[in-house]
Amino acid sequence: MAKKARKQEKTEVTLTSRDKKTLSSLRELAGSVIDSAERGRAPFFDVPSRSLSNVRFNNSRRIIEMGSGTNRRELFNLSQAKSYMQMLLVGSGCKQLIEQGKTTSIRGLYYLLKHTIPGTREETFDEQADCDPIIEDSEVTLDALREELHLYAKSAGSMVGPIVLVDSGDEIDCSRMGSGGYTIPSIVEPEIVQFKKNQAEFILHVEKDTVWRRFNEDKFWREYNCILTHGGGQPPRGVRRMLNRLHHELKLPVYCLLDNDPWGYYIYSVIKQGSINLAYESKRMAIPAARYLGLRSIDFERCQLNPSVQIKLNDQDIKRARQIAQYPWFANKKPWQKEIELMLKNGFKLEVEALISKDISYVTEQYVPQRLDEEDFLD
Amino acid sequence: MAKKARKQEKTEVTLTSRDKKTLSSLRELAGSVIDSAERGRAPFFDVPSRSLSNVRFNNSRRIIEMGSGTNRRELFNLSQAKSYMQMLLVGSGCKQLIEQGKTTSIRGLYYLLKHTIPGTREETFDEQADCDPIIEDSEVTLDALREELHLYAKSAGSMVGPIVLVDSGDEIDCSRMGSGGYTIPSIVEPEIVQFKKNQAEFILHVEKDTVWRRFNEDKFWREYNCILTHGGGQPPRGVRRMLNRLHHELKLPVYCLLDNDPWGYYIYSVIKQGSINLAYESKRMAIPAARYLGLRSIDFERCQLNPSVQIKLNDQDIKRARQIAQYPWFANKKPWQKEIELMLKNGFKLEVEALISKDISYVTEQYVPQRLDEEDFLD
Repeated sequence: MAKKARKQEKTEVTLTSRDKKTLSSLRELAGSVIDSAERGRAPFFDVPSRSLSNVRFNNSRRIIEMGSGTNRRELFNLSQAKSYMQMLLVGSGCKQLIEQGKTTSIRGLYYLLKHTIPGTREETFDEQADCDPIIEDSEVTLDALREELHLYAKSAGSMVGPIVLVDSGDEIDCSRMGSGGYTIPSIVEPEIVQFKKNQAEFILHVEKDTVWRRFNEDKFWREYNCILTHGGGQPPRGVRRMLNRLHHELKLPVYCLLDNDPWGYYIYSVIKQGSINLAYESKRMAIPAARYLGLRSIDFERCQLNPSVQIKLNDQDIKRARQIAQYPWFANKKPWQKEIELMLKNGFKLEVEALISKDISYVTEQYVPQRLDEEDFLD
Repeated sequence: MAKKARKQEKTEVTLTSRDKKTLSSLRELAGSVIDSAERGRAPFFDVPSRSLSNVRFNNSRRIIEMGSGTNRRELFNLSQAKSYMQMLLVGSGCKQLIEQGKTTSIRGLYYLLKHTIPGTREETFDEQADCDPIIEDSEVTLDALREELHLYAKSAGSMVGPIVLVDSGDEIDCSRMGSGGYTIPSIVEPEIVQFKKNQAEFILHVEKDTVWRRFNEDKFWREYNCILTHGGGQPPRGVRRMLNRLHHELKLPVYCLLDNDPWGYYIYSVIKQGSINLAYESKRMAIPAARYLGLRSIDFERCQLNPSVQIKLNDQDIKRARQIAQYPWFANKKPWQKEIELMLKNGFKLEVEALISKDISYVTEQYVPQRLDEEDFLD
């Protein structure tokens, strides 16, 4: 009986103010269909264009933004009818999730919506790849983050430091989370995660969990009074949004320790200015004031590293480096041009882990403290 | 000054009893070299063979074990000299880590040991792939888990439930860990992780974090009083070792909810009997009494699923399924033969997420409760 009682409790769902806003956007979208039908007009949506041509760098805000271009998607157009209907399906799935107070992965939403249309052999979605762009279209059309549609990505990223937060009602003291730290969830909106008490003075974001672990084991965050995060490579949305919230709400500077390679530069640019793919989320993800702490192309000489740690640049690396040098936000920064040129001249890249060849704790006891002390960053 | 004082404290390293044992094995290995030299004999190691021919299924213990075959590796043998010296290098690196009370990733160890041999153009290791098998050789030769050599793998796996544990001195209440749960670290040996208070009655292990999240969100573990874990696909060593310790030390049954495909079967067999690659770790990893809760090949009919959720088996799947059916521990189990045959006959596989097509919470409210209630498992 106790079990049943608990189950019935579950059905009472408390909608957050954000949920109500998202539901209202969803209803508006559906209402436009009814409206068109009643007025005898062909139903359509105007979907903000996610193509490269509709993305631009906003020089004053220093983030990548979407332009105002839209694509019309019509029901009575043979080439658009399917994606039109798929978008309504995605909307109805998200409405169901929000109303039930549940979340799911994009895989889960795909299965929730996948079925054979009665009387035909036509599938609503043939595979996941058919569903994913429709989800992104829905995000931009509804101006709602994926997480606000109750969809989440895989969690990949950890955090440790002198901060206490509340996650889904549980109080989490990030200074007492053992060796693994606090897993940064995919959804860190204020309705889920609140900051309760912070004593940290800055954030050190490192690329990989292996590096993070070195810093955690050496209790770097305790000595330097900072929050230590990693994103498992390219940080997922949850990690980027967490960094953004910590930076803006708690006024914490963000320093990034990434590999000295095009991928490291790219990760930095995504954290700082946002990405082209998710340009519509930049305003809540990007951190224009983030700083690049290293590794730098000068480090091979500066730190007197052994030539064995060099990894030769391949053609792909060289191509990517040249592309990145052309990004508007790097193109007019002399220190970045010098940095990228020197890497190309070096002909090799360096991983943060290469510093271990100096000493196991060289990175935590020498490299990062020196950069912080000398305020020696790239912007 | 306070900072310096703290730094000096760090140098005092407390060795655990396990550390002392590992160091003594390392000294014994090095001693054998000196011993051979002093006696004017050619130095060698006998490395337990990790080849398939030296792996067997122990019918009474129901785990995969290594046989007693060894390969001799000699210093004065042109084809073996390099790997002989590499093994001494790995040993010296691990000794350094243990004595300093630090851990690192296999990538970190590679960088720690990588250098050009003076007076030559020869590298100790050309790439990571040269170092990894030597680490595995060292594990079997020293009879020490990788974690005991102070090397760790990437953490990938979470846990939630009514259990309180201590990780690196921090008390962790796994029932109050927010939406992300407790990250299962790579090293969960008793020196690092202790179980303090347990109220759970069993463990539900699911394959993927997306499924784990559904169960966590629905507070399944609270209603059914269990520990909920996932391993991000094929569970890494830390997760397997954690399951093993929870099972053996706290006497908790383990139920596995995996995809209905050859990969799901394989994950189950690894959790249950160990893997061929890590046969030398089976005794501390395998859980012969683990049960397979689903998904099953009968579920398409039993749960009346929509044909859209079927994923056609490809040639690789069919080949793998036939191989797995021949594994000694599956070969003489009729229910498993029937299970695999039916999958092949069906011609399709099913992901756990497919159950969402019934209802978002069908898996937590119907599927798993019914299996548990009817004790309907495969062994």
